Amino acid sequence: MDSANIRIVLVNTTHPGNIGGAARAMKNMGLSRLILVAPRKFPHEEADWRAAGAGDVLEQAVVVDSLAEAIADCQLVIGTSARGRRIPWPVLDPRRCAVEVQASVSRNEQVAMVFGREDRGLTNEELQACNLHLHIPSHEDYPSLNLAMAVQVVSYELRMLALDGQLPEAATDEWDAPFSSVENMERFYRHLEETLVLIDFLDPAAPRQLMARLRRLYGRLRLDEMELNILRGILTETQRAAAAAAAGKQDRNTS
Amino acid sequence: MDSANIRIVLVNTTHPGNIGGAARAMKNMGLSRLILVAPRKFPHEEADWRAAGAGDVLEQAVVVDSLAEAIADCQLVIGTSARGRRIPWPVLDPRRCAVEVQASVSRNEQVAMVFGREDRGLTNEELQACNLHLHIPSHEDYPSLNLAMAVQVVSYELRMLALDGQLPEAATDEWDAPFSSVENMERFYRHLEETLVLIDFLDPAAPRQLMARLRRLYGRLRLDEMELNILRGILTETQRAAAAAAAGKQDRNTS
Repeated sequence: MDSANIRIVLVNTTHPGNIGGAARAMKNMGLSRLILVAPRKFPHEEADWRAAGAGDVLEQAVVVDSLAEAIADCQLVIGTSARGRRIPWPVLDPRRCAVEVQASVSRNEQVAMVFGREDRGLTNEELQACNLHLHIPSHEDYPSLNLAMAVQVVSYELRMLALDGQLPEAATDEWDAPFSSVENMERFYRHLEETLVLIDFLDPAAPRQLMARLRRLYGRLRLDEMELNILRGILTETQRAAAAAAAGKQDRNTS
Repeated sequence: MDSANIRIVLVNTTHPGNIGGAARAMKNMGLSRLILVAPRKFPHEEADWRAAGAGDVLEQAVVVDSLAEAIADCQLVIGTSARGRRIPWPVLDPRRCAVEVQASVSRNEQVAMVFGREDRGLTNEELQACNLHLHIPSHEDYPSLNLAMAVQVVSYELRMLALDGQLPEAATDEWDAPFSSVENMERFYRHLEETLVLIDFLDPAAPRQLMARLRRLYGRLRLDEMELNILRGILTETQRAAAAAAAGKQDRNTS
């Protein structure tokens, strides 16, 4: 997804801090084109402060007078909306909107994601200038997201889609040691069982489910080779210490 | 997913505004349990201001001295992390982490989502107190998210998973009029074709691909019954106007 084809449009933003916060959220997610429609205060130190390392996004931001100007050359315009408009408009959540954006960008179209005023969002007229509405499915007890937060969520979904298939599926996909083979695990279980017998924790005459429990524990965990070596080292030293203690006992008994 | 089993833990937060922003992000996404580990400044008016309508989350926030205290009764602890720790730890993106959280909560376990300091995140020791790490796959040019933004993204993913299967799949799932049947669409196409012939836009002797193009246009769009009535009303009036104009012409010709 070429992010240069995607612009974030903020309409009549009141608080410059939100412009800065939006710029940072965008850059964090790989977006850079910010268009400001008649912002109340811009440039402003509060915007710079909240943008932190995304000052370049603010510097390159384009200020225009009207939404029409901001979206004139776009093929797809998506407006963020709360629920319950008078005429229902095609509406999707941020994840499903991202799919539409990707399809449009892959045809090398220009896409605008439009965000309204802090206190009352986009007007009906502005919303009717959009092909599609985006609704963040917030909780009914307090549905109103901060403006920069909404930009964060929408930008995040675009990034997640752009990274689709590249993110690790399993928590241990990026690991520093190979995972153990069945063969090595069986050696470990034999070593473990011997040791447990030696220290009198496991009674071979009444083993109950102990080894099954331990097999389930380590099997669920999946040990890597380095971890297996650590555990086997502990077992070896345990055997040695137990043998030494037994020898000492015998010494004391025979002296 | 019972959100009462999920706590957001902020460790050593420097800016009270971020605590407020996090509280708002949580409430927007249906979360309410906030635990603050030794915050620099709390309570603070900046936190109240940024929390906006989530003052109740701040009021109910619990302040503790150590991370250990914040997570003692949890079965699953997830720590947010930047990439590149010395020892790789099991790590997932926010979407895949949400699945783990849901599984844990469905067993009625307590889950902690832990967020570190603004400037340097969680310490290695704190990260090693976690079962799993969460990494927001931000862009390499500027990977560091604002703290409250990170809380927003993580809370949003939990909400999206909680709503799984309940969100509209298609943009027009929630509509105010039934969509037209093939039968009614065919009547409309006949009406359209007649009208286009009447106004001399369509030449029956050389129709080219005009009706095919128009069928593709309206077929792609899917009209609802109300829209179809509007369009047929326009066609009827167009026919009337064209007939009146033709009659007028004839009148002038015969007078």
